[in-house]
Amino acid sequence: MIKEIWAYNEKFVQNREYERFATSKYPDKKIAIVTCMDTRLIELLPAALGFRNGDVKIIKNAGATIVNPFDSTMRSLLIAVYELGVNEIMVIGHTGCGVQGMDAGEMLHLMKERGVSEEHINLMKHCGINLQEWLHGFEDTDAAISETVDLIRNHPLMPPEGVNVQGFVMDSYTGALRLIECAQ
Amino acid sequence: MIKEIWAYNEKFVQNREYERFATSKYPDKKIAIVTCMDTRLIELLPAALGFRNGDVKIIKNAGATIVNPFDSTMRSLLIAVYELGVNEIMVIGHTGCGVQGMDAGEMLHLMKERGVSEEHINLMKHCGINLQEWLHGFEDTDAAISETVDLIRNHPLMPPEGVNVQGFVMDSYTGALRLIECAQ
Repeated sequence: MIKEIWAYNEKFVQNREYERFATSKYPDKKIAIVTCMDTRLIELLPAALGFRNGDVKIIKNAGATIVNPFDSTMRSLLIAVYELGVNEIMVIGHTGCGVQGMDAGEMLHLMKERGVSEEHINLMKHCGINLQEWLHGFEDTDAAISETVDLIRNHPLMPPEGVNVQGFVMDSYTGALRLIECAQ
Repeated sequence: MIKEIWAYNEKFVQNREYERFATSKYPDKKIAIVTCMDTRLIELLPAALGFRNGDVKIIKNAGATIVNPFDSTMRSLLIAVYELGVNEIMVIGHTGCGVQGMDAGEMLHLMKERGVSEEHINLMKHCGINLQEWLHGFEDTDAAISETVDLIRNHPLMPPEGVNVQGFVMDSYTGALRLIECAQ
């Protein structure tokens, strides 16, 4: 499949189809989005929010969650704020997210079935890595988004003022955005 | 700006523009992409690779890097592989990435200017958080992508077989993809 994608890419470049996307690295709308890697959002999210090339920074992971305050998602947000002029952050979860209700035990079982060594998995516990916690999903999307908003707003390296952080849930079929009320 | 985006979203939904994006959560092309949050890639990357809604999982952060093997990016890849049937992973850096040459000292200076407490920053060192390392960029894009590919291929929780991981650099203007030769 990667070869097919590569062949497509060669034609795209030959036909100079890139010309309509020319822009700079600075986000015109001064917004960063944290959202989910879900396939349903790839074209739907930019279309449903009117984003064009160059408008915003988009950070994506499984579930639009921040697993720890010093992970790559939070690092990306700090770079967006301090280096790229972002002053608004939208955390956008979505309906029917695969991370909701995800079960760590089930995933560890799948890993062993695919040949991951049980000895290595057990060893991680003794290295201080809690896989049960790390691979656990969230129960409630609204609550998860609210927690993420809280984590960003109160992160010790965020500026005390001047960055507006809001949480939303997008309908994965219609693209409709619903605001989550987050405690300040 | 968030209010304007929200108003746009209401019209999008009213006009039922979402109907052309209908799909499921499973990636039709069984591929996950790890790439950068850069504004120049928002429309360019899917267009340059021929990706439509529903085709792939896209994970994005600053620089397409994995800051630690148990961060949210690696977690997302494991979910994509074990829960969503992904069997190919493309790590795609790009030319002129803002993370290249990023200087931790400069960012910490900007943080203090914006009102982040110097006392809190100093305290982090004594909590085992190395901000100089965490906020440091990479020197060379090819080498950074190669390291990320290596980290994914050799992650202790990846299946020993059946997942093809490749690294690329995309031209931020033309979208042209260049393969990075990574040691097996």
